This record gives sequence, C-alpha cells and structure tokens, in this order.
Amino acid sequence: MAEVGIDGIEIRTGKLKLDLAETFAPAQGDDPEKFTKGLGLYTSSFPDVYEDIVTMAANASHRLLDRKDLSLEDIGRIDVATESAFDKSKPVSTYVAGCLEQVFEDDLHHANKGERKFACVAGTQALDDAYNWIRAGRNQGRKALVIATDTALYERDDPGESTQGAGAVAMLIDENPDLVAFSDAQGYGSADETDFLKPNQQFPSVDGKRSMQVYLARMREAMEDFERNGGDTHPDNFALIPFHTPFPGMVRRAAALGFRHCIRGTEVEEEVADEIGHQPREESFDSHDEFLEAQKEYTETLTETEMYSQWYAQTIEPTLAISRYVGNWYTGSVHIARAAGLQEALEEGRDLTGRQLLVGSYGSGAQAEIHAETIQPGWEDELGQLNIDEQIENRRDISFDEYEQIHDVHNHAESIEMDPLTTPEGEFVFDGWGRMGERKYSYVE
Amino acid sequence: MAEVGIDGIEIRTGKLKLDLAETFAPAQGDDPEKFTKGLGLYTSSFPDVYEDIVTMAANASHRLLDRKDLSLEDIGRIDVATESAFDKSKPVSTYVAGCLEQVFEDDLHHANKGERKFACVAGTQALDDAYNWIRAGRNQGRKALVIATDTALYERDDPGESTQGAGAVAMLIDENPDLVAFSDAQGYGSADETDFLKPNQQFPSVDGKRSMQVYLARMREAMEDFERNGGDTHPDNFALIPFHTPFPGMVRRAAALGFRHCIRGTEVEEEVADEIGHQPREESFDSHDEFLEAQKEYTETLTETEMYSQWYAQTIEPTLAISRYVGNWYTGSVHIARAAGLQEALEEGRDLTGRQLLVGSYGSGAQAEIHAETIQPGWEDELGQLNIDEQIENRRDISFDEYEQIHDVHNHAESIEMDPLTTPEGEFVFDGWGRMGERKYSYVE
Repeated sequence: MAEVGIDGIEIRTGKLKLDLAETFAPAQGDDPEKFTKGLGLYTSSFPDVYEDIVTMAANASHRLLDRKDLSLEDIGRIDVATESAFDKSKPVSTYVAGCLEQVFEDDLHHANKGERKFACVAGTQALDDAYNWIRAGRNQGRKALVIATDTALYERDDPGESTQGAGAVAMLIDENPDLVAFSDAQGYGSADETDFLKPNQQFPSVDGKRSMQVYLARMREAMEDFERNGGDTHPDNFALIPFHTPFPGMVRRAAALGFRHCIRGTEVEEEVADEIGHQPREESFDSHDEFLEAQKEYTETLTETEMYSQWYAQTIEPTLAISRYVGNWYTGSVHIARAAGLQEALEEGRDLTGRQLLVGSYGSGAQAEIHAETIQPGWEDELGQLNIDEQIENRRDISFDEYEQIHDVHNHAESIEMDPLTTPEGEFVFDGWGRMGERKYSYVE
Repeated sequence: MAEVGIDGIEIRTGKLKLDLAETFAPAQGDDPEKFTKGLGLYTSSFPDVYEDIVTMAANASHRLLDRKDLSLEDIGRIDVATESAFDKSKPVSTYVAGCLEQVFEDDLHHANKGERKFACVAGTQALDDAYNWIRAGRNQGRKALVIATDTALYERDDPGESTQGAGAVAMLIDENPDLVAFSDAQGYGSADETDFLKPNQQFPSVDGKRSMQVYLARMREAMEDFERNGGDTHPDNFALIPFHTPFPGMVRRAAALGFRHCIRGTEVEEEVADEIGHQPREESFDSHDEFLEAQKEYTETLTETEMYSQWYAQTIEPTLAISRYVGNWYTGSVHIARAAGLQEALEEGRDLTGRQLLVGSYGSGAQAEIHAETIQPGWEDELGQLNIDEQIENRRDISFDEYEQIHDVHNHAESIEMDPLTTPEGEFVFDGWGRMGERKYSYVE
C-alpha cells in the first residue's frame, strides 16, 4: 500500500511583529530575560487589521496550490482546525474556499469542507482524518488540504500575554508524499481537564500551572499508549522530535521527561549510569512521593549530561527555531515545529531521508497524540520552497501603542477603527462585516 | 471486507414541550395552522434548566453503552457534532467523556475525542470520519461513538422561532453493524454561502428565503455528484429517504425536486407521462427562465399524481414522524429522520432487511452530502429498543411564560435564575459554571 502523508506545506505569519525584549518588557516593567531566557521567546507575530484566521489560511493555501501546480478540482477535502472561530455554525473552511474560488478558475463545490475544534491538537486530528480518508480508498485520486490557523491572543496582563502569536499552516495530504509519511501506530492520552478554556469568549481563561501539569501528564499517557500500540520510542530512532510549543520553555521540560522515559531500560540508560546512576524504580521507595522526588532529581541530573545536551541540540532545539520568533500559533504550533526542525536540518546539510520524526501534539481540555513520521526523499526540495524566514524578517515592528490597538481589533468584541500598518499586495484581505454578521474577503493584486 | 455502519442509536429529547398550536400561536397572535399545516410542526422540545448539549449527549450515550453491554474501553473515538458549543477551545466530547467516567468503572483516556462544526451537516461528517477510521483498519477492534447534539434556539420573534428544538442522537459505529451499513459512494454539493450564521452569538442570523434556495441547490449538486461517483438514485431502490429536516415543510419541497430529478429518463417518467406529459428538456426552450418555469409547473403537477402520493407516503412521510413533535435538532435532525422512518416501518411490519436508505444531509454555510445505507438484519431488534416516543409523551408541557424564561436560560448570554420544571432522575445534570467559565456536571441517581 502506498505511503500517505504530507506532500507539501506552507506557513503564513501575521505581518506585524512585537519585540518582547525591546518593546513589551519595558512597557510592562518586566525584565527582558523573563521572556528571552525564561520562555525562550524573542518576538511575537500579530495580524494586521486586514488579516485574520481566514486570510492567513487562504494565503498559505493559495501559495501551496500554486507552487504544487494544482487546480481546485484536485482537492477532495478541506479541513480547518482552529480555536479562534468567529462563528458557531459556518466553518472557516467555507470562507477559505470562497477566497480560493476568487483566484482559481475552477471550484470546490464537490470537496468536503469541515472544521475541527480541540484546542491546539485539532490540526493533528484533521491530518489524521485526511490520512484515514485516503487509506480507506475514498479520495478518488484527490488530495486533502488541512489548515491550522489561529490568532492566539490572551487578555491583556494575562500571564500568557507574552506567548501570543498568529499564523496559519496549510498542509497537502496525499499518497506518495514529498515530505513525510505517517505511521499507522498512534498513542492517545486524554482526560476531561479544566486547564485552558474559551467559554463564549475570544480570549482564554487559563490556569497556567495546571496547564503545564496536564500537558506533561497527557503526553506521558500518549507515549505509553503509543508504545502499547507497537510504536518504538528509542531515542536513537528519531532525527527530530517536534512537540506542540506553547513557548519553547515548555518543550524544554517535556523533552527532559520524554527522554528519561524513553531511555528507561535501554543501553542509553546504562551508558549514562556510570556518570549519574540508574533511574529510580518505584519498588525501591517507601512512598510514591519519595519516588517522584528521586525521579525529579534524576531528570535534572540527566539534563546536565553531555549526552543529553547533544541529543537536545540535535533533536529538539532545531524544532523551536520558528516558534521563538512568532510565538504560540495554537493549532499550527506543532506543525511549525516540524517545519522548523526540517528547515534547520536542511541548512546544516543533514541527510534525513528515511529517518523518523516523533511528533507530539497537545490540546488543552485535554488530549495528547503521538505518532511517527518517515522523512521522504523529496523533503529537501519541498522545504527549500518555504519562505517563512523571509516573512518573519519582513514583518512590521510595532510600538506598544500600536500593539494595544491591534490587540483590541482582534478581540472581535466591538468594532475598532484602526488604519492598517502595512499595505496588502498579492493577498486575500478582510473587507469588513456584512449585514448578517458574516466576514467579507477580497483579493488585492 | 466487513460492512461498516451504525450498530446502535439512542435519541434523547429535551424534557420540556412547547405546544405550537395551543400555546405558541395564541401568544404570538398567529393562526395555529401556520405551524401545523405550513411547517408541519406540532410541538417543540426544550431542555430544562439542568439540561444542555452535554447532558443530552451524555444521557443518550450512557443508555446506548449500557444497552449494548459495552465498557468505556470498547470505545476508541468520540466525536461530537454541534453548532451550540459554549467554548471555542475545549470540545464537548471531553465533557461527555467526563460524565461517562463518573458512572462507568473504566475510562476513556486512550480514546480520540473531537468536535466537528459545519451547521447541521457535521453529524454526518463525524460518521464519515468514523467510517474511514474503521475502513483504514485503525480501530483495533474498538468502536466509535458519534454524537449530534444541539439546542436549536432562535432569537425571539425570528421567523425561525417556531422551528426550534433540542436533543441529542448518539450513534455507535462498528464493523458488522446491527442497524445500517454505509455505502462507499458519496456525493457533495458545497459552496461559500451566507444563509444562516452564528457570528459570535448563540442564536443565529438567518436569511430564511436564501436558506431554502441554498438547501435545494446544494442538495441537487450533491445528488449529481453521487450519481457521478457510481451511486444509483432510481427511486425504486430506496425504502426510505431521510433528509435533513429543519421543518417537515422543507422536506416536502426537497422531496418533490428530488423525485423529479431521479425519475428523469427512467421508466417511471414514462409511466406518468400519459397523465402529465414528459419532463421539460432545456433544449426545447428559448430561455433558461422559461425552462425553469415549465419545470416548476411539471413538478407541481407531478406531486398531484397518485404515484407520487404513494411514493411520498411510503418513503418520505415516515421520516418526519419524530421531527413533527420535537422541532429542528440541527446536527441531529437527519439522524432522527432515519430513526423515525425505520421506527414507522417497524410498526407497520415492513420487511426492510437488505433494502436501502438514501440519506440527504445538509448544513447551512453551505454543504449537502448524499450517501446510501443498507438496512441490516438486526434493524428490528435495534429499533425496538428506542424509547423516544415515551420520552416525547412524558415531556412537561410548558406555558408561554415558562417558555420565555427557559429561552433566556439557554442563551448563555447572562446568568438567569430559574427553578427547574422537572425533577431529574437517573441522569446527568448541569450543576453551574465553575471559576474558569467551565460547566460542571454530576449524575443524579
């Protein structure tokens, strides 16, 4: 049976940049290192007045279809994953399709359009549905377009404010893909949690501490489930491990726990045992709490070893390269981690064809999903086409006053009059609300 | 390859009843026949104060799993379809899972939970994803739980107010199903439309006239696509044709257009030709408008024939039997149409094993989907377990004053103090909002 996976990818960032150290920290009276060292974030992306989840999704998709020389009739399915929807009934995918139909000659009238919601994990769920659709033999030679798009903004002065971001990732799912092929095996860790919510509001209610605990607990459950389902998690198997990245500091923690879990009982544990001893085993402790304390200490010591540093620098660090400059993109976050890792590897000339990725997705509420991907022979050509570094470089640097205004614009709570800070060119733009509360879009040459 | 389809179904209505002729019409100063004859609706279902999309979904699922003697570990996937979500990030399926975990011994930590949104068509899309998941061989012997749940309320005095309703349909998707097996062939008709929206609000903005036009246009496109994909639409093939039913009068119109389309060029057209002539063909007309006018006249005459009446009474009318008493359930609507049709057939002793259903789903915004289903040998036993008629019978009849209050309660826009009108027993109930804006649930013995 043919491999199924991601044939092409496009990333679109919001066109405005907030510098966390230079602009945000001084205005908030914070130490810049709180963001750059603590969170691992330098700048955030924001959409200009005429940008939103639809324009970013449509612009990414437009470039992807153009670049792959596809017509709309090649697409049998469009799924959008978002937690920034502005309508409870009409899906974002219909708006995106409406945009694409403005610039392509044919139409998407026979494509199945949908929308998935589950915090930041929904993009991966939509990839999974597309994979099953093709594996079930129902695509009739057509491809699926999966788009993760969000404006990940928090309430002003929320602790999450510095992790904001906005952007879209469009992915083409197909047989014999150019980029990566998905594994059949998956692992899920899922529970009814109250860590991050958006109850009838655009900006979230967040319990930051709980959210970090739940991320790690669900990821661990997913890893165990993946292993039970035949997935191999030996660290040597994976060239890169892209995680959902609310901020790089979170991934630093997840990576340490994940590495400790994966080396347990392997020759890797033996190798470092001379230096730091073996991992604590629960049976040697009087109480569970004592065991956990010992495990925590072991993990801290492990991260100080040369072996861990090398593994982290090679496998995790590259996946954070985009995130550090654009912030959290919610549904798109794990997908920019994959792209960043591969892009860094390409620049370093690493030969990754046939190597594996372990992909760890997560959504609050809460669910983690883990699967593996095999890097395909076309990956270098495909990654070479990305222009995200150029987009990041070209963003308009905004002042704190401009930030305050643009933040209000994207709340959708009221109508804010603000002039755009950039000039649109060759892209879809938001044109205002219609009489029924719909949003209107046009293409600017 | 084993058949895949619906193994079991449970329907849960809101526990309050608004009588349209006796209570609503007099209060609004309307002729009762506007509702009973015009729309084909007698009563509407509303949730009591402690009911909502989660409790109705969880109560339907609880009874379904109990009745099928399943544990939670038999479930590999829970997808909820709704357009009444109260959170933009956390999916309803996590709340439903949390409820089920209160009453079952095992848990759903390794089940993939999700949420689909596309107006009223999302329930069928979630069935489709579950079908593909099993067909792709990824279910590992586990079943999918698909739930369509909505509180379909309109603004007070909106023309749609009389079509309101509330309820949930839980469906178990499995190999070798007891109820119906899905066809591989499907047809889609889909376009970016502004007919019905919920822009950042619980109650919709509706263009009623446009909505009817779009329903018929997209359904026609889906039918043509289904035929192109190898689906046979000869009316003799189908024992029942359940349509999405915003109100029975809408289905009356869709059925007439559908029947005319499907008999075109068949021996059925010849049979009625003596009585009413052949269908108009576009090439015989000077203008497209003249052709459409003639086609409209032909359709009207066709619906007055004995042949059409018999077909309608046998194939369409039974599917409306529940809808007439509960109103529109949005995502659940087409699924109560299927259940109603089969339930009526069971009562009449029709032998339907091996016969086919043609299922026409629709969501505003807009997309229609058409597929066929084959009725399985276990259908009579499975349908015999439904208690929806009893639930409908036992609803509490509410006064217009009570209706006005309960309508405000379900807007979620503000907190309304209102005592419940019924007493919960053996069911999940809503317990109030938590500190982060989450909704809380418990099980009442």
